[in-house]
Amino acid sequence: MRELYELCGADRELLFSPYCWRVRLALAHKGLDFHSRPIRFGEKAAIEFSGQKLVPVLVDDGQSVHDSVVIFAYLDARYPQRPLLGDGAAAERARLVERLSFHALRMPLLKILLLRAYQACAEEDRDYFRSSREQAFGMPLEEMADPQGGEQQLRQALAPLEAWLGDKPYLEGDEAGACDYLVAGMLLWAWCLGVQPWAEESAVGVWFTRIRQAYERNHGPIKRASF
Amino acid sequence: MRELYELCGADRELLFSPYCWRVRLALAHKGLDFHSRPIRFGEKAAIEFSGQKLVPVLVDDGQSVHDSVVIFAYLDARYPQRPLLGDGAAAERARLVERLSFHALRMPLLKILLLRAYQACAEEDRDYFRSSREQAFGMPLEEMADPQGGEQQLRQALAPLEAWLGDKPYLEGDEAGACDYLVAGMLLWAWCLGVQPWAEESAVGVWFTRIRQAYERNHGPIKRASF
Repeated sequence: MRELYELCGADRELLFSPYCWRVRLALAHKGLDFHSRPIRFGEKAAIEFSGQKLVPVLVDDGQSVHDSVVIFAYLDARYPQRPLLGDGAAAERARLVERLSFHALRMPLLKILLLRAYQACAEEDRDYFRSSREQAFGMPLEEMADPQGGEQQLRQALAPLEAWLGDKPYLEGDEAGACDYLVAGMLLWAWCLGVQPWAEESAVGVWFTRIRQAYERNHGPIKRASF
Repeated sequence: MRELYELCGADRELLFSPYCWRVRLALAHKGLDFHSRPIRFGEKAAIEFSGQKLVPVLVDDGQSVHDSVVIFAYLDARYPQRPLLGDGAAAERARLVERLSFHALRMPLLKILLLRAYQACAEEDRDYFRSSREQAFGMPLEEMADPQGGEQQLRQALAPLEAWLGDKPYLEGDEAGACDYLVAGMLLWAWCLGVQPWAEESAVGVWFTRIRQAYERNHGPIKRASF
């Protein structure tokens, strides 16, 4: 039995971790089923067995694997059909795309989503969420959050992808691949928290909808926050 | 006879186009000789045969090829040894790394280098350089230029590469590849214009020096602006 430990909000169906979404998209790409094990911030004891404290954790064949990109590599090694990262230069470059796009997108998305993520947390997790983030950023959540500024920065960060997707359906060309899922996972963070800080009809918007709808056709509608 | 048309300053040995440097590094990677055809901004008639106005233009086997990434693909097709972009997902991902790193690095480098590039131009090219850039940016060169602000932005833009290179010698892992040359070409723009807006001992600095010195061992010292 394959299990995916992933972050949920007060509502256990509300999954809003970008890293967990990457893995869901990767499992769907491979055509692999799994049982979801949604955990809240306060329930990390459930993944103690993994030897670390972060989701996603995939348990497959008795093995536990964590970190979204490591899980991609694990899936390729264990289930060679429809490679995600692939080998050699292809794999290295996918990792580089992940690092560069993560660096560009994370901060703008954080500014947009921080207070929404806080609100999505179960009541009893909010103190932890606030204090861990405030310590990491060195400022109050409310100071760090800046949805308007974040949207402007996000538009700027998405510009090269917007141009890139102007003449192809996926980041990887004619078919979706690892880079598509690594980036789309980041945007699902926003989508699930109830916002879509990009234009529906933009190339990025059309691409994101294409990936989301392909997922939803097989796995049902993705739960979104309603606040 | 293989010829590379590339941008030069008033000093014909001063080559400061990042796109031309990418191609020099790619030719060196393949072990291919060429005759340099340095042209100034005012000498673009020399590349009219290419049907467009931008360097680099590579003339090889009677064929003219322009655009650094297109030249990489041409070189792979014509000289399969030591692939640069390679095929399929590997090639697509290298192009994506190029777009993302270009987007992140270009503006900070421009702010640092604009007035130096202006100064490197031949007297008679300066009006063209100024007016074309001022039209593109919608502001005077002196307003666009901001070496201090650019350095800070560049440090931020290089952060993911700095972390990436912390545990491997090249962007592509154990050996330099297309992504290394595509990014190092951007930094040679600064190096040739006489600045090095990154710390020599940083991971990026050590990597850049490694690539530059490997090139210089085979091709002699790279000319730098002395102003």
